[in-house]
Amino acid sequence: MRRALRLAVRGHGWTNPNPMVGAVLVRDGRIIGEGYHTAVGNPHAEREALADCRRRGENPAGATLYVNLEPCNHQGRTPPCTEAIIESRLARVIIAHQDPNPLVNGSGIRRLESAGIPVESGVLAKEAIALNEGYCRYICAGRPFVTLKAATTLDGRIATASGHSQWVSGPAALRFAHWLRHVNDAILVGVDTVIADDPQLTCRLPDFFPHRQPLRVILDSRLRIPPAAKVVSGKLPGQTLVAVTDRAPREKIDRLAKPGVIVDIFPADADGRVDIAAVLQALHRRQIAALLVEGGGHVHASFLQLRLADKLNLVLAPKLVGGRDAKSWIAGELAATMDQALRLKDFHTRRLGVDLLVESHLEEVGECLLV
Amino acid sequence: MRRALRLAVRGHGWTNPNPMVGAVLVRDGRIIGEGYHTAVGNPHAEREALADCRRRGENPAGATLYVNLEPCNHQGRTPPCTEAIIESRLARVIIAHQDPNPLVNGSGIRRLESAGIPVESGVLAKEAIALNEGYCRYICAGRPFVTLKAATTLDGRIATASGHSQWVSGPAALRFAHWLRHVNDAILVGVDTVIADDPQLTCRLPDFFPHRQPLRVILDSRLRIPPAAKVVSGKLPGQTLVAVTDRAPREKIDRLAKPGVIVDIFPADADGRVDIAAVLQALHRRQIAALLVEGGGHVHASFLQLRLADKLNLVLAPKLVGGRDAKSWIAGELAATMDQALRLKDFHTRRLGVDLLVESHLEEVGECLLV
Repeated sequence: MRRALRLAVRGHGWTNPNPMVGAVLVRDGRIIGEGYHTAVGNPHAEREALADCRRRGENPAGATLYVNLEPCNHQGRTPPCTEAIIESRLARVIIAHQDPNPLVNGSGIRRLESAGIPVESGVLAKEAIALNEGYCRYICAGRPFVTLKAATTLDGRIATASGHSQWVSGPAALRFAHWLRHVNDAILVGVDTVIADDPQLTCRLPDFFPHRQPLRVILDSRLRIPPAAKVVSGKLPGQTLVAVTDRAPREKIDRLAKPGVIVDIFPADADGRVDIAAVLQALHRRQIAALLVEGGGHVHASFLQLRLADKLNLVLAPKLVGGRDAKSWIAGELAATMDQALRLKDFHTRRLGVDLLVESHLEEVGECLLV
Repeated sequence: MRRALRLAVRGHGWTNPNPMVGAVLVRDGRIIGEGYHTAVGNPHAEREALADCRRRGENPAGATLYVNLEPCNHQGRTPPCTEAIIESRLARVIIAHQDPNPLVNGSGIRRLESAGIPVESGVLAKEAIALNEGYCRYICAGRPFVTLKAATTLDGRIATASGHSQWVSGPAALRFAHWLRHVNDAILVGVDTVIADDPQLTCRLPDFFPHRQPLRVILDSRLRIPPAAKVVSGKLPGQTLVAVTDRAPREKIDRLAKPGVIVDIFPADADGRVDIAAVLQALHRRQIAALLVEGGGHVHASFLQLRLADKLNLVLAPKLVGGRDAKSWIAGELAATMDQALRLKDFHTRRLGVDLLVESHLEEVGECLLV
């Protein structure tokens, strides 16, 4: 199963909205075939492993299949894997956990068992659910898995009092930021970030650019975005979605919309700003399974106040700027007293060159309940 | 030498203002004696190792001595170690680095060599200097080694906008905070922290309380400290030094001073506050080798603005409070633009229960130059 999980990871950033899946065929303690789900629309891991087995001149009949997710039992972009398993006369299937997708959710197991193939579930389940936390949230919560990302000084600042922000973190953290864009399906920022930095919001890692660009999402209630901004130029690979309210000037909407640039009107919240929950629902309908929120401070505060963030990726740079008016990565208040503070869990840290990456999960958002 | 360094660490918190030193005697690849400097005033590591050797019934003559610091050659609280080494007819001495103390600084090596005992220097020097960074700074810079310590949320806050601060970090971080008090000779806070929290500032780890309490230092320019505050009650183990300027009311000074409570008048800085450099000089004269600064935000900012901090111990709690008016652990401005930010180096992280400890050194303070 560890091998299956390692294979699964190779699809990271390519499989969404599908999960990452790896599969290994074993007979007499020997691997006779293996594969993983390489990208959405491509064959599932089980079929890849069976094909690999045949390429090796082996017969899969009687083998044990290790796969980190319950095999599908429905016709989706590809035919059901259960049929391939039954046709190949495998002896046994070992999975990490059931697929939370209501289209599967136990029916794959039942189909195999009714064909006389025993299924064992729960092997390395925790690791497998962590691997596909984005997929599970997307399926269970009806919204994308939301990661907040910020690069701050060690005193939590993203800019000095004067607004100066270039640069907080170093080259390794920048590469990591582009990798995050690759493994997410959409990148969201507030219009103030576009006005201040005129970012491209593309993934510019050589292996991935210009393929599979994330959808760029700009929260811009009153459509203040400069028409000359790169993200609405129509010249970047991939698409930009500008999320406005009905207070956005109609003629400006018409002027902005062009191939590669969509302007969508969303309900307003109590403060007259784009309702974030409505945007997340719309992204779910577009099969955006994983959303990266790149700030600034007001956007991060909004997602946290609404408890609509799952994970935090904080890059801490070895710098201090201090000062009451320096910009924090969370601009809005979350708690009046310390015991009301929003809680995180599972600190993980990693060095990114001179910087430090702190990963954590939001506690109150809760677990995706899986069997 | 690794063994010597491991032995040396056992003296952590007890040897100041002396360095931590461990010594190992080896003959024919076998350890025949070992020891460490257990506490200031007690025998040095070399003499401990020689005594251990004789207790084991071994003769040290012809053995090699591994010791992480150059043996002393002067009569201090104890007689010179060079004499003990020469008398014992050791064959060879291997040290990590020279003692920066001008009373030693090469003279120990020269004395041994002139007695015909070859000395090799530089073995694990980096590790050994890091171990005794406090001692080296104390000797080289004429001031204590200064560690800033703060417990903050993951957005850099020590209190909410209302000032509510209890509690930021958890039990493991609290134990660590008391251990920090043990390994430092003095604890410094601003008077606002005393007014807000009425802390005891004692080390309350069972093994160390009430022995070897750090000196409590309160920065209190105008002597606003409440006369009922625990630190000036005269009832705590150890001493309290209240650092005031000449704007402090004379009669209040007289009323506060009692056994265990010293009120000292220091020069004022441009803002009329106690001059921190003058306080550090006074602490150096009191043989305070290691000072722990426990904040709050204004005190931390002052030490950083003056570049009078060597090390940072930041406890990050898995919490977010947000908000423009929440209290940061650095209240004063350090940089107008991001490229002027105060730089840190050598991130080290460690879990403290649910919290995360981030250790770092201030880059601009520079290295203690050692041969």
